[in-house]
Amino acid sequence: MFFSTLEYFAKEDEIVPTLVIMRHGESQANRDNIFTGWSDVALTEKGISQAHQAGKIISKSDIQFNDVHTSFLKRAIITTNIVLNEINQNFIPEHKSWRLNERHYGGLRGKNKLAVKAKVGAKQLKVWRRSFSVVPPLLKNRDEDPRYDRYGVKIPLGESLQMAQERLIPYWVDQVAPRLLDGKNQLIVAHGSTLRALIKYLEDISDEEIPNVEVPNGKPIRYDFDDHLNIVHKQFMTDK
Amino acid sequence: MFFSTLEYFAKEDEIVPTLVIMRHGESQANRDNIFTGWSDVALTEKGISQAHQAGKIISKSDIQFNDVHTSFLKRAIITTNIVLNEINQNFIPEHKSWRLNERHYGGLRGKNKLAVKAKVGAKQLKVWRRSFSVVPPLLKNRDEDPRYDRYGVKIPLGESLQMAQERLIPYWVDQVAPRLLDGKNQLIVAHGSTLRALIKYLEDISDEEIPNVEVPNGKPIRYDFDDHLNIVHKQFMTDK
Repeated sequence: MFFSTLEYFAKEDEIVPTLVIMRHGESQANRDNIFTGWSDVALTEKGISQAHQAGKIISKSDIQFNDVHTSFLKRAIITTNIVLNEINQNFIPEHKSWRLNERHYGGLRGKNKLAVKAKVGAKQLKVWRRSFSVVPPLLKNRDEDPRYDRYGVKIPLGESLQMAQERLIPYWVDQVAPRLLDGKNQLIVAHGSTLRALIKYLEDISDEEIPNVEVPNGKPIRYDFDDHLNIVHKQFMTDK
Repeated sequence: MFFSTLEYFAKEDEIVPTLVIMRHGESQANRDNIFTGWSDVALTEKGISQAHQAGKIISKSDIQFNDVHTSFLKRAIITTNIVLNEINQNFIPEHKSWRLNERHYGGLRGKNKLAVKAKVGAKQLKVWRRSFSVVPPLLKNRDEDPRYDRYGVKIPLGESLQMAQERLIPYWVDQVAPRLLDGKNQLIVAHGSTLRALIKYLEDISDEEIPNVEVPNGKPIRYDFDDHLNIVHKQFMTDK
């Protein structure tokens, strides 16, 4: 494993901010094994059920969140809202940012992963899916979607995990980390690749190791930090 | 009626910002005919269905909203999220404020309206429900709810409609009106009494007339303004 549970016990009066991150429940594209990225697909019934289950798991921890952060994509937003309702914290501020969007898969978008594998081989598929710096085939024309225009965002033609990380980390540094440093518990509901990029950053995982990190749908991961935002504890939350 | 549809046609290049306001779908307390206020009750199945229907109605108008505003109460928040999903605008910023909360009913909270009527008579019940300035019986002890502490809010012991309006209008003036004046369409999903208070303010309805204004669950009302925020058109939105 690339992290260990540290033997750390916080003093009673110490501020130990908590972060919970989770990937949205199963989407229609997850179910159909299709590259999706910035396409705005809905949750499946199973995905909705995973979101409820994740909320029930989080509610057992009694964490009171001060903020929740999610992307512009409905599979993450709807998962967020289901979780907030399950933990009875509907009222907390919900921040949506394109910076938390899934990696943009460029020319792979809409393609079935098994079909891609049949065409380019398992090795190339894994590189496109899991490597840090390899860029997918780029689109020739930029998508138009007015939801991004209002923030002056140029929709990517395709992103490596590294490119996704580069636009994600400013959000972490500017919007999430300062809140944790203020002792405010934070929840992030996002996507497989953006969470891999965040975990890589938080845990200093190398480019060589990151292909082995996967983030399953609807499984909350808890981090407790010290007051310098060093990780003192990481836990895959369960209902036990 | 206390308003009229003005004969106004906007020029093509004129900014005519649009506001849509609506009350949440039927709550458990609406169904059971109980005074609720700041108690955080859920929607009924009928209320959920009303929220979907309202979203379908709004989606026919093709209004692109820039912001949605709602209260700290889940019956409004869940209605908001259902509407955003129906209009496929999940990604817009969702602002939650205690200032949009329902009127606090003080000592009437949790009481069945028919039981109150049997005790105090129809006239007094109507005064408590619909008058502008009459304060309900006040609670002796202030409720504790940490969601308000973080904003330094003292939970009311009870509010007249006027008191609710006094804490609501700063939100309108500071958070909603400036956005409309910037040409940004706004959606507000709130509560029966706070929307009556807002309508009274927007339409200059007198204290004597306001008891006759009711806002039904899940029925969106559209206002179009000129660039001085005068109302040029008001419409109860329908699916026709």
